[in-house]
Amino acid sequence: MSDRIANAKLRGKIMTADEAAEFVNHGDKVGISGFTGAGYPKVLPGAIAEKAKAAHAKGDEFMIDLFTGASTADDCDGTLAEADAIRFRTPYQSDPILRSKINDGTTYYADYHLSESGMYVSEGFFGQMNVAIVEAVRITEEGHIVPSSSIGNNVEYLDEAEKIIIEVNSWQSENLEGMADVYRVGKLPNRKPIPITDPGQRIGTTYIDIDVDKVVAVVETNHPDRNAPFKPVDDVSKKIAANFLDFLEGEVRAGRLSYDKYIMQSGVGNVPNAVMSGLLDSKFENIKAYTEVIQDGMVDLIDSGKMTVASATSFSLSPEYANKMNAEASKYAKTIILRPQQVSNHPEVVRRIGLIATNGMVECDIYGNVNSTNVMGSRMMNGVGGSADFTRNAHISSFITQSEAKGGDISAIVPFVSHVDHTEQDVKVIITEYGYADLRGLAPRQRARKIIELSHPDYRPILEDYYDRALHYAKENKVMQTPHLLEEALSFHQRFVSTGSMKK
Amino acid sequence: MSDRIANAKLRGKIMTADEAAEFVNHGDKVGISGFTGAGYPKVLPGAIAEKAKAAHAKGDEFMIDLFTGASTADDCDGTLAEADAIRFRTPYQSDPILRSKINDGTTYYADYHLSESGMYVSEGFFGQMNVAIVEAVRITEEGHIVPSSSIGNNVEYLDEAEKIIIEVNSWQSENLEGMADVYRVGKLPNRKPIPITDPGQRIGTTYIDIDVDKVVAVVETNHPDRNAPFKPVDDVSKKIAANFLDFLEGEVRAGRLSYDKYIMQSGVGNVPNAVMSGLLDSKFENIKAYTEVIQDGMVDLIDSGKMTVASATSFSLSPEYANKMNAEASKYAKTIILRPQQVSNHPEVVRRIGLIATNGMVECDIYGNVNSTNVMGSRMMNGVGGSADFTRNAHISSFITQSEAKGGDISAIVPFVSHVDHTEQDVKVIITEYGYADLRGLAPRQRARKIIELSHPDYRPILEDYYDRALHYAKENKVMQTPHLLEEALSFHQRFVSTGSMKK
Repeated sequence: MSDRIANAKLRGKIMTADEAAEFVNHGDKVGISGFTGAGYPKVLPGAIAEKAKAAHAKGDEFMIDLFTGASTADDCDGTLAEADAIRFRTPYQSDPILRSKINDGTTYYADYHLSESGMYVSEGFFGQMNVAIVEAVRITEEGHIVPSSSIGNNVEYLDEAEKIIIEVNSWQSENLEGMADVYRVGKLPNRKPIPITDPGQRIGTTYIDIDVDKVVAVVETNHPDRNAPFKPVDDVSKKIAANFLDFLEGEVRAGRLSYDKYIMQSGVGNVPNAVMSGLLDSKFENIKAYTEVIQDGMVDLIDSGKMTVASATSFSLSPEYANKMNAEASKYAKTIILRPQQVSNHPEVVRRIGLIATNGMVECDIYGNVNSTNVMGSRMMNGVGGSADFTRNAHISSFITQSEAKGGDISAIVPFVSHVDHTEQDVKVIITEYGYADLRGLAPRQRARKIIELSHPDYRPILEDYYDRALHYAKENKVMQTPHLLEEALSFHQRFVSTGSMKK
Repeated sequence: MSDRIANAKLRGKIMTADEAAEFVNHGDKVGISGFTGAGYPKVLPGAIAEKAKAAHAKGDEFMIDLFTGASTADDCDGTLAEADAIRFRTPYQSDPILRSKINDGTTYYADYHLSESGMYVSEGFFGQMNVAIVEAVRITEEGHIVPSSSIGNNVEYLDEAEKIIIEVNSWQSENLEGMADVYRVGKLPNRKPIPITDPGQRIGTTYIDIDVDKVVAVVETNHPDRNAPFKPVDDVSKKIAANFLDFLEGEVRAGRLSYDKYIMQSGVGNVPNAVMSGLLDSKFENIKAYTEVIQDGMVDLIDSGKMTVASATSFSLSPEYANKMNAEASKYAKTIILRPQQVSNHPEVVRRIGLIATNGMVECDIYGNVNSTNVMGSRMMNGVGGSADFTRNAHISSFITQSEAKGGDISAIVPFVSHVDHTEQDVKVIITEYGYADLRGLAPRQRARKIIELSHPDYRPILEDYYDRALHYAKENKVMQTPHLLEEALSFHQRFVSTGSMKK
């Protein structure tokens, strides 16, 4: 028995995953730990999936409503989705099998902002939570949970659920203890200002205090996080990173930014990771991150001394970097703070500290509206995640993308986006391998040509032709704020659906 | 000479509007006071318009970039627009002549969130501000400005502009002094938490301190605010108000709201005003408002004792109520607080205090995306105003609308909105005269039928037919997250443009 469970009462609750899964029933609302493949429960999902499959084999119903921090992994979302065990899912996912179940209609998916999802649970918008399943590095003598590699919505699920199941994972380094900074924003009507004025400030505890009487099971595991390698930085990503740096340099020249203390938020992915590689060789020093995820590129910035503080709610590391983090957790705990996602992504703090937000996207239109979620308007990709938490409240909000996808058949820039997750009022800078468009202070017509210039040369003439004709029509009809041809606004998407390419 | 100008130095700057207008040059960035027709400068706009017309008559260019709090009035936005004197306008307007100039392409209009527009000016996103023109009730001995019936972005414009022109308006009651609570959120990197935890809390000064050396002119006026009467509450508005109250009662039954201390935000307009009439006869007591505008209905709630605190940045009153406010300003100053719009609308405070936001809209779609700005996707109506400041951060965000407009030729509910200002993640409740749809915790497909039920019976079958066929297509093609038929998504708008009606 692990010495990671210091509380006598909870030692008495140790059981197998299959035994623990008996506490999860059909129709339950289950809130689990896990954010970008880190810190999710490793064995309960499989045991619940088996239970679902056995029920289905007998002709019985068995599906749960699954709440997480954000995405998890194939042995969590994937396994449960494959067993058709997820009726409802929120607030974010990125698993291929779950995605297919969402898009074939098996699973209802409510895509919510990551800073708000835990709050909605606390406020009772989803009804009573039944079970919380949370991974821990260890359980303290008092029965407190020392969270593992993500904090996510753990606090809200542990506070609100009727029953608690704890997975104590000995793969996670015990030296992660100290990284967490657990702070409750508080329920209405008793919310106070969150006292963070700098990304490096600690305001809470290193553990989550829980109602020990609610714990029905403790399960021991030894499984690694999902740690997918990042792609090597390619030429296009290098160009995008260079254009992003150009933009930052312009801000310095304009006196709106200094080489000292640039505060970064970065979305998850290969292109944002490439941007961080670019920063390694830049003039920027004492970089701070107030973001949701620590990626490889951020660890490199920390190692190089370029980044002095990184506040997040989770890790998303390659296997190599995950091993390094586990081996040197005590060292990194001096620089890295993991917060509940309600705090890491909180509009109040984001607006106050004045960060530059940088996120990926599915597509944007010629006026700056951004689609982050629904491919061709209908098919869910992953979800909005924390991108809007940061975009809406950042000092400057930027979006980075390759100009085309699917071997050139999809343009990242379209006449009219097929879904809007970030409105034109919020999107301030767009960056592709062809440059950057600074949209601040510009009316829609002043933005259009700048955005079209960022598109791939294959699509530029088609976009210019659309805009020219829309402008002509709008002038004639006195609808010049946002010129469009309604019958052609979605033509790029219609063409892709019918021919497999947005190209004419 | 008015005894309202107590500062000796500034008494020496008194001149006529025409003389003061000489300080405003072609190409200037001019930031003025004014929000929903209250507290805007009354005579400088006319004098600048005359200057523009004279220049144009000589073949010279004369246009300014005009920044306000929000909308102003016909003798401000209207007069300047008619003289073709506005090259660029931000962040909000509602004037018929200016609207026509925006839509015919004369004026560039950048529609920004009201809580952010002043911040952008401070951060230099628009470049150097040249002139601030601000209406005052009086100037103190120290040269401080006591603002009149709106605060808006006065502080940011006065702080950032090179030159200041003050209009001292003796129509405004001197007893307005004491209503203002002027607080600077602060520039990066020195922002601190805003210490408001209750709508009634005062955290600032009753005046705006300025750099007296920047004042180039003081002009005396005696002109009333634009005070348009509200329409009498009609049957449809009564039904909407009743449905809104039904929703509130449901929250009380669910234990998520109490009859005591409901915190309200309300958009401006006849329907929101009707909702307030409905609250007069409700069980709700000790209502507080954290909102941007004080309307007639709110004054009635205050008079009845139902509302104990109203925090806003401005008034929007009928002439009768404006006279009452002027006559009894000392009394109302006990209940009403006017804040800079960066504070009245600040995401930090809105999220902390947990209000219920209620705003109007142009249209919403069957999944809950809301268009507040662009009619048929292109023609600017007014702007997003503060609706997103509140909607994104409220405890519950609701939208209220009549189910149809233009005598039935426009449906407020469409398959796919032609512009998005409020994303599906944020829109929690939609209310028409046919009921309310509570969208919280629902995936898009779980929302669609509920929203369609709120549409006018003339449009319901068309919307149901669209959704049925979209659902069928999505099932076949495994794109079930947000079922749409791309070729018909904008068909309601196309039909209106070609036939004058969205009806088939």
